[in-house]
Amino acid sequence: MMEVLFNPRSVAVIGASTKELSIGNRVIKNLVDFGYKGRIYPINPKADEVRGIRAFGSILDVQDEVDLVHIVIPNKFVPMAIEDCGKKGVKVVIINSAGFKEIGGEGAELESQAVEKAKEHGIRLFGPNCQGIINTDADVRAYCNFTFTKPETGNISIVAQSGGVGEVINQRFSELGVGVRMYASNGNACDISIPEIIKYWGDDELTRVIVVHIESLPDPGEFMEVAREVAAKKPILAMKTGRTIEGAKAVSSHTGGLAKVDIATELMFRKCGIVTFRDEEELCQAAVAFATQPIPKGNRVGLITNTGGPAIIATDELVEAGLEIPPLSDNAVETLTGKLHAAAAVSNPIDVLATGDAGHFRAAMDTLMDDPQIDSVFLNFVTPFFVDTDSIAKEMAEVNKEGKKPIICNLMTDKAQWTETIRILKASGIPFYSFPETAARALAAMTRYNNLVSREVGTPTIFDDVDAEKAKAQIQTARNEGRELLSADEVFSLLDAYKISTAKWMTASNPEEAVAAAREIGFPVVLKVDAESIVHKSDVKGISLDVGEEEVKTVVEEMEERFAAEKPRFLVQEFLPEGKEIIIGAKAEPGIGHLIVFGLGGVYVEVLEDVAFGITPVTAYEATDLITSVKSHKLLSGFRGEEGVDEKALAEILQRVSQLVTDFPDISEMDLNPVIAYGDRALVADARIRISEE
Amino acid sequence: MMEVLFNPRSVAVIGASTKELSIGNRVIKNLVDFGYKGRIYPINPKADEVRGIRAFGSILDVQDEVDLVHIVIPNKFVPMAIEDCGKKGVKVVIINSAGFKEIGGEGAELESQAVEKAKEHGIRLFGPNCQGIINTDADVRAYCNFTFTKPETGNISIVAQSGGVGEVINQRFSELGVGVRMYASNGNACDISIPEIIKYWGDDELTRVIVVHIESLPDPGEFMEVAREVAAKKPILAMKTGRTIEGAKAVSSHTGGLAKVDIATELMFRKCGIVTFRDEEELCQAAVAFATQPIPKGNRVGLITNTGGPAIIATDELVEAGLEIPPLSDNAVETLTGKLHAAAAVSNPIDVLATGDAGHFRAAMDTLMDDPQIDSVFLNFVTPFFVDTDSIAKEMAEVNKEGKKPIICNLMTDKAQWTETIRILKASGIPFYSFPETAARALAAMTRYNNLVSREVGTPTIFDDVDAEKAKAQIQTARNEGRELLSADEVFSLLDAYKISTAKWMTASNPEEAVAAAREIGFPVVLKVDAESIVHKSDVKGISLDVGEEEVKTVVEEMEERFAAEKPRFLVQEFLPEGKEIIIGAKAEPGIGHLIVFGLGGVYVEVLEDVAFGITPVTAYEATDLITSVKSHKLLSGFRGEEGVDEKALAEILQRVSQLVTDFPDISEMDLNPVIAYGDRALVADARIRISEE
Repeated sequence: MMEVLFNPRSVAVIGASTKELSIGNRVIKNLVDFGYKGRIYPINPKADEVRGIRAFGSILDVQDEVDLVHIVIPNKFVPMAIEDCGKKGVKVVIINSAGFKEIGGEGAELESQAVEKAKEHGIRLFGPNCQGIINTDADVRAYCNFTFTKPETGNISIVAQSGGVGEVINQRFSELGVGVRMYASNGNACDISIPEIIKYWGDDELTRVIVVHIESLPDPGEFMEVAREVAAKKPILAMKTGRTIEGAKAVSSHTGGLAKVDIATELMFRKCGIVTFRDEEELCQAAVAFATQPIPKGNRVGLITNTGGPAIIATDELVEAGLEIPPLSDNAVETLTGKLHAAAAVSNPIDVLATGDAGHFRAAMDTLMDDPQIDSVFLNFVTPFFVDTDSIAKEMAEVNKEGKKPIICNLMTDKAQWTETIRILKASGIPFYSFPETAARALAAMTRYNNLVSREVGTPTIFDDVDAEKAKAQIQTARNEGRELLSADEVFSLLDAYKISTAKWMTASNPEEAVAAAREIGFPVVLKVDAESIVHKSDVKGISLDVGEEEVKTVVEEMEERFAAEKPRFLVQEFLPEGKEIIIGAKAEPGIGHLIVFGLGGVYVEVLEDVAFGITPVTAYEATDLITSVKSHKLLSGFRGEEGVDEKALAEILQRVSQLVTDFPDISEMDLNPVIAYGDRALVADARIRISEE
Repeated sequence: MMEVLFNPRSVAVIGASTKELSIGNRVIKNLVDFGYKGRIYPINPKADEVRGIRAFGSILDVQDEVDLVHIVIPNKFVPMAIEDCGKKGVKVVIINSAGFKEIGGEGAELESQAVEKAKEHGIRLFGPNCQGIINTDADVRAYCNFTFTKPETGNISIVAQSGGVGEVINQRFSELGVGVRMYASNGNACDISIPEIIKYWGDDELTRVIVVHIESLPDPGEFMEVAREVAAKKPILAMKTGRTIEGAKAVSSHTGGLAKVDIATELMFRKCGIVTFRDEEELCQAAVAFATQPIPKGNRVGLITNTGGPAIIATDELVEAGLEIPPLSDNAVETLTGKLHAAAAVSNPIDVLATGDAGHFRAAMDTLMDDPQIDSVFLNFVTPFFVDTDSIAKEMAEVNKEGKKPIICNLMTDKAQWTETIRILKASGIPFYSFPETAARALAAMTRYNNLVSREVGTPTIFDDVDAEKAKAQIQTARNEGRELLSADEVFSLLDAYKISTAKWMTASNPEEAVAAAREIGFPVVLKVDAESIVHKSDVKGISLDVGEEEVKTVVEEMEERFAAEKPRFLVQEFLPEGKEIIIGAKAEPGIGHLIVFGLGGVYVEVLEDVAFGITPVTAYEATDLITSVKSHKLLSGFRGEEGVDEKALAEILQRVSQLVTDFPDISEMDLNPVIAYGDRALVADARIRISEE
């Protein structure tokens, strides 16, 4: 069906209008102006023709087949129009009209009706409250959209949840003189989804890079599955907006979704291998490079410059983006020496000087292309009036043709004067930019993509020693009793079932049992009161640490008395020696899975907010990545001669937690706090698990 | 002399050339093409004319007065040419030629000669190894520069240390169709300095905003003095490049300076009230707004939009930049209700909908202009084909004319189609941008400037209870003995002299004196060996903590024996109870003063690198700012119900340290580590002071 949406052989417009300034007129104008190769059928019961094209009173009056229909009539007539489309055998309908889910109430009801009608007839819906699609393919030229930007033909395909954002991005490529392959903005997305479109473009040979704008994801799972598959084949550059709470509120009032600060979407992007952006201009400029250049195989950049200051800026920017500017190899230095001006710098950056000519640039480029220590080439090229910049550009084009390594150019020129130099560069496919920062960021984005796709993320380990039945029973007990919070013994039983190492523990119903349990565990012990009504034990002095043999009985008796109303049980635990306190948490993100959080406990989390987030399922690679990416990681790996902790044990807990919450998605929140880590193991000392209401 | 440099009545070019592709020809061509209002004198002993202008064999042959001379001849002839200029009574010379300090050795020698010659004759030098200046003033039209960008007339003045960077910035304003007032790039800056130029523009009424690019500052003190004065009057937007160690190396090989990571320059910018940038494009786009709009009086932005998605992006960006998007006042809501479409959002952002017309936009703008809770207005304006966007732009222009609050516009349009709308907006002086992020950042920069200039930084407190003579004596003793590191008793005497509170201390030469001292101080005590040869006491077990009355003698005897070869003395100190460990440091930054560092000790500094930096002299405001801007500040102000520490005492130590190192600039490094802070005081427990070689 995506094939029909983007390559329709005929398009009808229900609501075609003779009024120049209406959408029902503009869609037809756009199709005609863009040179649409198929047939156009205006549907208008009152007019004989629209923009000189014969109009029909009803879609049913059209004799030929109709692939695609635009509906641009008031919301309440839409379901009826879909019914007509069904009778006619239409395959895809774009509903441009607004007044659906985004206004709630009656609108949402109309949207459901439209979806139902479409399903009945096997019609796929695009929209409503949307712009539509564009396909620049010479054989298609479909501008099924009412907006104003007419893109040139190219290799970038754009899908945007917000039409406004999509238009801004599309417009920017136009301004940059860079072509677009296909465009889509599906508004409320009641049926055809962004993942479906991405999947389609994943198989479209002429799409080299996919640009995605997201405000909210109705089905993150579908998105992840598709994105992971496509991103492995070709770059997906994406931007999620509404990140701040204020921005999220704006999304919410705009789309009717729920407002909350969203960190999961960008984590998900990363997990799938999507290159994430927080700036449209940066995204567009990067897309330009992705559209023509090969992906760098590593982080090492070779620079060539004919001016000092901007090369310094490029250097700052590249280094701050995590790229390296390594020295040239001895071989490279030897090759290049003698081929440049005497005062030129044969180092990295290579400074060929303002008077450097085509031969100098060529020698420098060849050297970098052959240097195995260099992964990509950054040209910093000002056009002095006293050198032949056209022949320099020609040499650049020649080298680029070989396609050995990606080339990016910061071109400092007056575009009105150096027209031929620009023409040559443009024809070559070397992306060129007006600022060293912009060029550097584009190269950094390409390098980021390489790092994402060459990660050995692996697949999640499936631990087969877990006892899922036992775990299920614990959750079921709580659920049966209408509790969201699991009791301490349920929590620890659940952890045991998934072989998540904990401090030794036993339960006791009374002081005598507690004493017996403590004897079995060994002294000193920790005593915790356990009753469903007591959530924050430490707030009510329901925990006693470091309890010796002679005190157990008294402590439990005292607790028993104090909490008599709660009918408490008791948890007797091994009192763990001092170690590094770790926090591991999981929080359900509907549709995505669970957000996993890792950090050092106490001030590191609470004051310094030094935590790392991930998304389930967590692989061994990702678990290690979580542990090493907190700033306080040094404290774990052995600071000031201290023994490091057992990071493998922590990584295993992370993976087992991931498996547990994946097996039981109804665990809404899980906090292991603290986990105490030692040189040879890591043990959960306290934990809380909350399950979602059914 | 700046007046002559930027408004020369006549310009001679020594090295004027008949060769089209030479700088000696291009400077004359540029002057002519730009419509220079003064007289031009090519100096060339072999030609009768250059570009149709009568040439002279020598500057001395010119009859009329010559204000300004370009020198474009090989380096070794330059001093002689300056001699001629002196005889002729020339006031300012621009040396475009290269081959001076930047190549070291002979070049540096030639530069010194040139400076000397110029001084003899009262000539001011600009350059060498530089581009020159541009003045777009209709009465001047001086293009004393060999580059290619011909700016329009405007209110932005640019000074760039790197000609390449200056040209890129100048070119960008040209591309944006935004005018420039004056331009200068002074290369090696052997005489006329960037601060002099900034000072001149500070008094130039038609310069509304000054753009500065810096790679390294030969005289930071001069820069600070000027920048502080000028930034209080008009915005200075600056960028320091070569921030990373790699970038600094590039600066170093480019300018011959010393390579080190530079954090002091940006701190200095901030101290002076300069708006700092790390991206040229962002700087340029912000300058466009500064050039026409009033400065916002606060952080609160009101948004008006006619499209959803981009408004969300604007919101994200503004919030992330620290701006607020407050709700509209009740009054504003009341005023606006009923004046927009029924489905419009009367909130912040105000969504007038895509069908919103001129009246709707006007009503929304008027409301925000009158709402006392709003400091600036962000217009998010897409141009749908079905509304009259020209009249919307006209209303925007009308409101802007009132100049009540700054207005920034994100204009989403096709520039080739909506030409009249764009013309109206451009004429209005409302800055408009192609992306919400860009517009938001420009507004954020203006707000940052307001925050900088409205800070009550105050002047440094001068503590008159200090004993500078006593401090001087300590430093002198070390200096006399050829030591860079002060001994423990010198350090503590110096701190006492500046009333920086320390743990009680006394010195002792032998065990008996140590016992007596300890008795006076009270038990327990800390014992430290003190000898010039022992730098890191703790590494050699030269410190003993928590020493009780009965142990003092033994410990000192043991140390005496172990360090016998070092002929040690001993420091007996009060053993301080546990408190918050703080690090306060100072490090000389030649020309600037001292870098001051503040942080919590131990892992906070060493692992989390959570420190704040400042520049002397530190005022009370700045001291508080340092203390509160570390992320771990919460730990000082009372975390988890703990008592907070005496931040006033810490602030006083910071200010006294600032006064001390300002009084004694030869203190190259000073570390108070740790300072122990309590609820009612803060005491230095250990300290180190290093003085510079003379």
